[in-house]
Amino acid sequence: MLKRLIEIVGKENFTDQLEELVPYSYDASINVHRPDAAVWPESTEQVSEIVKFANEHKTPLIPRGAGTSLSGGAVPIQGGIIIDLSKMNRILEISIENRYAKVQAGVVCDDLNRALAKSGFIFPPDPASSSVSTIGGNVATNAGGIKGAKYGTTRDYVLGLQVVLPTGEIMQTGAYTMKCVSGYDLSKLFVGSEGTLGVITEVTLKINPIPRHAMTAVATFARLEDAGKAISQTMMSGVLPSVMEILDKVTLKSIKENTDIDLPDAEAMILTETDGYTWQEVEAQMEVVLNIFNQNHPISIKTAKDEKDRLDLWKARKSAYATLARASHSFVLDDVTVPVSRISDLLLGIQEISRKHGMLIATYGHAGDGNLHPQILYDEYDPNQVELMEKVEEEIFDLAISLKGTLSGEHGIGLSKANYMSLEHDPVEMALMRKIKRVLDPNNIMNPGKRALDK
Amino acid sequence: MLKRLIEIVGKENFTDQLEELVPYSYDASINVHRPDAAVWPESTEQVSEIVKFANEHKTPLIPRGAGTSLSGGAVPIQGGIIIDLSKMNRILEISIENRYAKVQAGVVCDDLNRALAKSGFIFPPDPASSSVSTIGGNVATNAGGIKGAKYGTTRDYVLGLQVVLPTGEIMQTGAYTMKCVSGYDLSKLFVGSEGTLGVITEVTLKINPIPRHAMTAVATFARLEDAGKAISQTMMSGVLPSVMEILDKVTLKSIKENTDIDLPDAEAMILTETDGYTWQEVEAQMEVVLNIFNQNHPISIKTAKDEKDRLDLWKARKSAYATLARASHSFVLDDVTVPVSRISDLLLGIQEISRKHGMLIATYGHAGDGNLHPQILYDEYDPNQVELMEKVEEEIFDLAISLKGTLSGEHGIGLSKANYMSLEHDPVEMALMRKIKRVLDPNNIMNPGKRALDK
Repeated sequence: MLKRLIEIVGKENFTDQLEELVPYSYDASINVHRPDAAVWPESTEQVSEIVKFANEHKTPLIPRGAGTSLSGGAVPIQGGIIIDLSKMNRILEISIENRYAKVQAGVVCDDLNRALAKSGFIFPPDPASSSVSTIGGNVATNAGGIKGAKYGTTRDYVLGLQVVLPTGEIMQTGAYTMKCVSGYDLSKLFVGSEGTLGVITEVTLKINPIPRHAMTAVATFARLEDAGKAISQTMMSGVLPSVMEILDKVTLKSIKENTDIDLPDAEAMILTETDGYTWQEVEAQMEVVLNIFNQNHPISIKTAKDEKDRLDLWKARKSAYATLARASHSFVLDDVTVPVSRISDLLLGIQEISRKHGMLIATYGHAGDGNLHPQILYDEYDPNQVELMEKVEEEIFDLAISLKGTLSGEHGIGLSKANYMSLEHDPVEMALMRKIKRVLDPNNIMNPGKRALDK
Repeated sequence: MLKRLIEIVGKENFTDQLEELVPYSYDASINVHRPDAAVWPESTEQVSEIVKFANEHKTPLIPRGAGTSLSGGAVPIQGGIIIDLSKMNRILEISIENRYAKVQAGVVCDDLNRALAKSGFIFPPDPASSSVSTIGGNVATNAGGIKGAKYGTTRDYVLGLQVVLPTGEIMQTGAYTMKCVSGYDLSKLFVGSEGTLGVITEVTLKINPIPRHAMTAVATFARLEDAGKAISQTMMSGVLPSVMEILDKVTLKSIKENTDIDLPDAEAMILTETDGYTWQEVEAQMEVVLNIFNQNHPISIKTAKDEKDRLDLWKARKSAYATLARASHSFVLDDVTVPVSRISDLLLGIQEISRKHGMLIATYGHAGDGNLHPQILYDEYDPNQVELMEKVEEEIFDLAISLKGTLSGEHGIGLSKANYMSLEHDPVEMALMRKIKRVLDPNNIMNPGKRALDK
């Protein structure tokens, strides 16, 4: 194995050394398993040769970008070869007038956006990991982020792909044009496929002009129901805010205790932004949102007057994950998603689950599209706590599904939610997913053990 | 056959009478073939029974909405059973706060939009056929329309589907939420699949608030290159117009000769709109667009001052198709799509093809997303003209592909472009499309003979 892989990528782009494989045993989830080797291909042709080799030897192959998956998507749970695409990091073409950017899979999301910003353009999906996450990874997980309600997710921007199929064949999908209905939309089959159908090597993305103005406001509420109503009524108002984030009481308390940010005692805080081409557009929309907030008994409302204010208002939201991560030995970050009108039901239900099991859960996330992140705080070294955490997680999944929601808005299924897919999907759909997996990857080499689709 | 089908749908929902089958032999393309029977199911369960029956007897089954396909997608080229979904026309649920509408496949596009408009919402894709086209048909063809550059196509709005698979099994895909990455995106596999993978019976669509204001302007140009530059520069300006339509000289001449619309002699006319939540937003954006037009040597620029002006400016664009349709015995309407910067190259190339073969081609369409409609005027009763038309069409396809374009932006492949798919798609992609078709529909009952994917 060693010899052939070194032949393909060169000695400097191969490792089977324990100390170099350790970081490839993890991602941002709680799953761990060591691969047998890792390679850093520098071209699609090398990727193709690696895949052919793995397919011949029926060796698991795990494509990896920055390894920031929160669901175990990048963990080589059956060993095998990690194919790290970070050296394929060239921006191949930016065409502003034609509204597309073509990049290699290893290009970092923020690097692309820095290049686009020079022309006033942006690739809108903004996962929290964008400073390190790669475009290939964003596509493989259909990365979302804060602005999903107004600007959609990665899926909505993928025009075309270059993919190395599990046979090693190189395939082009899609087009360079904004519209295309020629044949099946194979690009979208790979968006969110979590490395189980092939290796994405190049991506052509639609890009948007950057909105020139934005305005930020924060409101706090003493009752979750009021916050929920404020969100629902905003979504019905004809205004589509570019940001509509929510933080629950537990999150706010943790931020207050661990930072110098001044926060009122509240059941919920909503951070919102409107954006547009003109300041008038931004203000008129914000006026509507603030009126709605005011009608729902807020404790406080603050509006940013300048950039410093704006950053201050964002501070609490931005520190949620890190503050909570430090607040306990271990944590699991989920991303159940419900219709917007059910957000307060989800939050109240999570509080009930937390109380029942005596386990702390802080919930925050993207209220504008119903995508919430319950962060379950526990101790991974205490077997009782681990068992309890799993029970809590399952109850949250059940709750989200009962509210017409989904297991995952943006983190993916990976390992963490593989056993719960049938809660959401009917047997016919599960069977078709398995058939498609089998027809593309009959030897089950691509990221095996994920999503329970290869059984 | 007759007996079992009548058992399923009832006598009143079945026909094998010639006079009733004639309209089902056509769509809006030039293809014709008579089916053996037609059924009007009233429920998903009936659809399932019909599909099971067809699958058992390996009988072709052709799902049909309004039959407005311009590519032969709805023509039963191998006979079989037409499954007309127009009786399944109930709007099942509209949830404004959760931003979705759930409808049966036979709901007419404009009927849905009338229902949504009461709450100030819209399903944005606006194919020219929206007054009759069904949502199921829109999804099966990934219908686009005039506002694609800013608002995308049907694909961007499909949250979930109910599909009867070729086995007769009923499958649910997707979710009710704005974000979902649970499993493969099977919904998108059916979007644009032209009835070749199953029968779409229910659709859950994302909906948007209606922009409150819009402003319209028209400019004419003496040189195609100037019009092309005006379009490209607008797309780079940071403004994304909601409308950016172009009409070429031949189209303008035909409108002028056949209507009372006053038009200057020009190589091209551009109709544009900006929209937004406030009038200031709309005006500020239009100012940028008009400045760009002014820098590119326009013959004339007109801006609508009121709704009457606006309708006047739209009049020429709206009358293009019908005027041209009356101008010759027969016509073919194509929809090649190119990157925006290549629009003037495409138009000049089409002029060259027209001159070379002495065949009149009028071209107009959606410049903002590069989706143009060359309307080839010929006489279907003259075999020489038919042969020439086919040659002209092929040269237009070659031209579009050479400009990094696609065969179809919104009309689909159907029968008309089936033989040209390999111009655009590599053999690996074609092979995977065929594999997917085979795994879903091993007996090839679903709309056979289309797209050359079932060979």
